Amino acid sequence: MTEQRTVWWEDGRVRMIDQTRLPAETVILDLRTDAEVAEAITSMRVRGAPAIGVAAALGLALAAQAAAAEPRDRFQERLAAAAERLRRTRPTAVNLFWAIDRLLRLASDEPEPAAAAERLTAEARAMVEEDVRVNQAMGRHGAELLPAQGGILTHCNTGSLATVGFGTALGVVRAAVAAGKALHVFVDETRPRLQGMKLTAWELQRDGIPATVITDNMAGWVMRQGRVQAVIVGADRIAANGDTANKIGTYGLAVLARSHQIPFFVAAPLSTIDFALLDGSAIPIEERSPDEVTHVGGVRVAPEGVDVFNPAFDVTPAELISAIVTEVGVAQPPTRDTLARLAKQTDR
Amino acid sequence: MTEQRTVWWEDGRVRMIDQTRLPAETVILDLRTDAEVAEAITSMRVRGAPAIGVAAALGLALAAQAAAAEPRDRFQERLAAAAERLRRTRPTAVNLFWAIDRLLRLASDEPEPAAAAERLTAEARAMVEEDVRVNQAMGRHGAELLPAQGGILTHCNTGSLATVGFGTALGVVRAAVAAGKALHVFVDETRPRLQGMKLTAWELQRDGIPATVITDNMAGWVMRQGRVQAVIVGADRIAANGDTANKIGTYGLAVLARSHQIPFFVAAPLSTIDFALLDGSAIPIEERSPDEVTHVGGVRVAPEGVDVFNPAFDVTPAELISAIVTEVGVAQPPTRDTLARLAKQTDR
Repeated sequence: MTEQRTVWWEDGRVRMIDQTRLPAETVILDLRTDAEVAEAITSMRVRGAPAIGVAAALGLALAAQAAAAEPRDRFQERLAAAAERLRRTRPTAVNLFWAIDRLLRLASDEPEPAAAAERLTAEARAMVEEDVRVNQAMGRHGAELLPAQGGILTHCNTGSLATVGFGTALGVVRAAVAAGKALHVFVDETRPRLQGMKLTAWELQRDGIPATVITDNMAGWVMRQGRVQAVIVGADRIAANGDTANKIGTYGLAVLARSHQIPFFVAAPLSTIDFALLDGSAIPIEERSPDEVTHVGGVRVAPEGVDVFNPAFDVTPAELISAIVTEVGVAQPPTRDTLARLAKQTDR
Repeated sequence: MTEQRTVWWEDGRVRMIDQTRLPAETVILDLRTDAEVAEAITSMRVRGAPAIGVAAALGLALAAQAAAAEPRDRFQERLAAAAERLRRTRPTAVNLFWAIDRLLRLASDEPEPAAAAERLTAEARAMVEEDVRVNQAMGRHGAELLPAQGGILTHCNTGSLATVGFGTALGVVRAAVAAGKALHVFVDETRPRLQGMKLTAWELQRDGIPATVITDNMAGWVMRQGRVQAVIVGADRIAANGDTANKIGTYGLAVLARSHQIPFFVAAPLSTIDFALLDGSAIPIEERSPDEVTHVGGVRVAPEGVDVFNPAFDVTPAELISAIVTEVGVAQPPTRDTLARLAKQTDR
């Protein structure tokens, strides 16, 4: 299941699946500059917090390689410019900033540009491998939370395509199924960009995991019918207290799950937790183009000139979250203390 | 606002706006047989519980006119066949059955086919006018429930296009705005068929009422931000105890409204109340083609072969509904008693 990577380094270039073309066709992009990587992130050819973190890291490695023959000042300047460009792509997912900062720290430790470029590239490539290991660990911890059988509702795409491989929330589902649990996944189509219907349904189909696509507004009704035993989603940024920014619609699902006494789980690597933020109110929420709502497949479906609100994310308060699953363990319930304790288990 | 009718009788034919072509173009259909009317209902060229009730009545009038020269037995036989064909179009909206039964009762009172056809046609045409009057009365009663200013969230289309004219829930919003209330409407796009984005946004735009389209999964987040002061929706069938079947997603909205302590209103004519049903559990819920979910504008967006659940409606329990607005008054809260009292105020 982890064979096909979403984003990787190959022969001095960044390669990735163009997710805007799925499920109709599998197109592999071949990116040679940090600007090309930045464009791929902005236009969501690669998406999902962990995947864009790794993509940004690889993009920065491209910039470092391109500047490796420059004098030190010029090298640092070009690296800083590339970092800035990559940071400006998308504001909400903290993994992006975390990955860039991690590489910049490394580069500043190494005075010689060619050596710095090599270290930085090696580290970015290590992050590719690390992401898959982290997700598999998350899968092991999270699988225990899911029931032996029943319906699992998920939102957006948190699978291989949202990461380098295996996935976060969908990785937990994969691990649970691999452990013998008989699960049926309800997949929210996830408007406006339909990542659930286009990407999650496609991944589950390839894995042979039973799944049913629903429109987002059916989630409550499916819960009411007793067909959902747990909800599990990913995260784009988690504040120190557990408040979680994730794909728009997540908050509503969490409220619905609470009303139906269904456990609501978040699965995300520690790199998604922003310990600098006390709570979710300070998480920047990206607003994207109204065209994402008014047009489907390039065709306008809304009346001309209509006003649209299109926040890409919302924030779910920690008190609606039963547990947050990370690669080092589970914060259940998520609080400032349980999350801080998890963070101490790693040398990050 | 009530000038353009959605469905009407003209020169012995049934005319209606083809709603599947909106908002791109306004196409007026010209239907000459009950079979053509039945097709228009099934394929949702006309939709909305009150509008399909009136359309079915006019369709039955076409059948009666076509059979007016037949002997009595044959006339009754053809009328019964047309009624059966129209009844089979869509199962959930009770207005359809109510309208057909009302006309069949009339026809059975009149032994002479030509006279019966005339009476039936006159009654069907009266129902066209009656629908607009009923909606305007509903508007007056409901307008008082809405705040003097603030955000109103609505779902699907309950406007002129869901009725002959003016609308049910959207009619209440229109009446409130006409009475000087400063309202901003949040319009759920309403997947899968996008009646909110395509039809409600179009109607509000034409009326100059401020409106913002959101995807269905944004409703909870907009509520959380304090931007919604009331939710108002229509209904396809209301059981005697107030349980309400309406467009899929309504139940989830009602749960979200309750969690945010936002009043949740239903506006529907008395003809939508099915006093034969004790509660909502017996309301038949139409499941429509998976293609409505997997295809947008005729183009497949989902992977081939994916499983889809596509109920067209859900049932909101009465305890989540603050009030039901009808043409004769408001049931607040809706209960077996308050609804029965309203029914007594009319000679239906």
